[in-house]
Amino acid sequence: MKVGIIGLGLIGGSLGLDLRCQGFEVLGVSRREKTCNLALERGVVDKSSTSFSLLKEADVVFICTPIEAIAPTIERLIPHITPQTIITDVGSVKASVVESCSLLWDNFVGGHPMAGTAEQGIEAAQKDLFAGAPYVFTPTESTPTESLNKVEQLARSLEARIYICSPSAHDRAVALISHLPVMVSASLIDACESEIEPEVLQLARSFASSGFRDTSRVGGGNPELGVMMAKYNRQELLRSLSQYRQSLDKLIDIIDREDWETLEAILSSTRTARPRFLS
Amino acid sequence: MKVGIIGLGLIGGSLGLDLRCQGFEVLGVSRREKTCNLALERGVVDKSSTSFSLLKEADVVFICTPIEAIAPTIERLIPHITPQTIITDVGSVKASVVESCSLLWDNFVGGHPMAGTAEQGIEAAQKDLFAGAPYVFTPTESTPTESLNKVEQLARSLEARIYICSPSAHDRAVALISHLPVMVSASLIDACESEIEPEVLQLARSFASSGFRDTSRVGGGNPELGVMMAKYNRQELLRSLSQYRQSLDKLIDIIDREDWETLEAILSSTRTARPRFLS
Repeated sequence: MKVGIIGLGLIGGSLGLDLRCQGFEVLGVSRREKTCNLALERGVVDKSSTSFSLLKEADVVFICTPIEAIAPTIERLIPHITPQTIITDVGSVKASVVESCSLLWDNFVGGHPMAGTAEQGIEAAQKDLFAGAPYVFTPTESTPTESLNKVEQLARSLEARIYICSPSAHDRAVALISHLPVMVSASLIDACESEIEPEVLQLARSFASSGFRDTSRVGGGNPELGVMMAKYNRQELLRSLSQYRQSLDKLIDIIDREDWETLEAILSSTRTARPRFLS
Repeated sequence: MKVGIIGLGLIGGSLGLDLRCQGFEVLGVSRREKTCNLALERGVVDKSSTSFSLLKEADVVFICTPIEAIAPTIERLIPHITPQTIITDVGSVKASVVESCSLLWDNFVGGHPMAGTAEQGIEAAQKDLFAGAPYVFTPTESTPTESLNKVEQLARSLEARIYICSPSAHDRAVALISHLPVMVSASLIDACESEIEPEVLQLARSFASSGFRDTSRVGGGNPELGVMMAKYNRQELLRSLSQYRQSLDKLIDIIDREDWETLEAILSSTRTARPRFLS
């Protein structure tokens, strides 16, 4: 089987490394000549090119570009491939991507390998990045079963944990545990920085330690990524923010009413609940 | 100088270890005989007792009990000491503690060493726990300067970073960077757990990774500690929660209005602001 990868960054590069190890022939396409050469040097691909014509014999093509470029990339790829070619993507939001891409290409399977590092680019590509991590596929009624099976088999070869669900269930779950934390965490930094008493702000900055550090981490991350989540998963993010606001308002009301028994019951339940998300 | 410590847990025990290293005679009082013996064995104290009479010759007494026990402990200690004895505490909330304790004892200096580990009890006591960490003193107009200087000198010998501010400035700053994150983080867990679609809840639990783990960490901690913060720092916590809610509502509104430029500006500002709290 020949596997094409468009976009040789952290995800595309790491996919290439693993799939080559599995014996697949990996054909890589990047916009930049320099990245193509680096991909060859690092053993990420067997062949690389800045032209989509390299992919004419690929059985499966992974689109590993930023979300906004997925559909435009497929449009440009179509003239170079045959209807048998399976296209899959690695975007972190699925409903909008699957909708637009399925219209462009019948043989499309939405995917989301949930792995990453703080680093970006092909230099950060590494083996076994996906081992043990969730790899989610989001077929629709019109997704060819055989194509889903084929990309699922590739994902299994990476030793990823496979999940299959609808695009909207994926987006809803990812909003809760990935996109919502970014906004919750950013709001914490914003609230602290908006402290109007200069002495208190200065003391807060001096006193902050591990609790603040951990809770604020994802809110202090890449702004472009945060905007991308909000833009492409807006509806589900707003839904999760509304759920969050209800939980927050409940806590505020309990503290305001000095209902310490209920507060302890809630904090006991969150302590019990947290490990269910981290097993 | 003889130093008394009441409450031989993580903080009291670690204070004893360091202060003995500095050559002070350390007298430790615990409610439990077993802890007294352990304190002697571990070299935390020179002498220990379950009776406050051990402290009659102490120049400075550190009250290292939970917050709610600080004032009652001072009441019980008073019959055993002379007016020259300086009393200081290590409570993580200051306005309410300083108010009640200053009424009981003129020679009282409110203090808060901002160090700790996830462990509790004398078994967790360790040397150099306070080195490099903030140690805040919160004198009032009636606090004797000489007494403040004396406890400050002790804190300096621990190589702590000394801060001096009003009790309310302390409580306001600590609410922002320590107590607010607990409620923000607990609300995240609560919001995720309140997901009404069983499939989405199950997927969310399976997909959660480092972003959720870090953002939810302090919200999944000790419920008694969370209640204690809310109870004794209620007013400042409510103030910080109100600031937080404004920041959150601003983000929700921006996402709702699809104002991506403003969202990117805010996320850029939180990325820039975060390191100011972690230097």
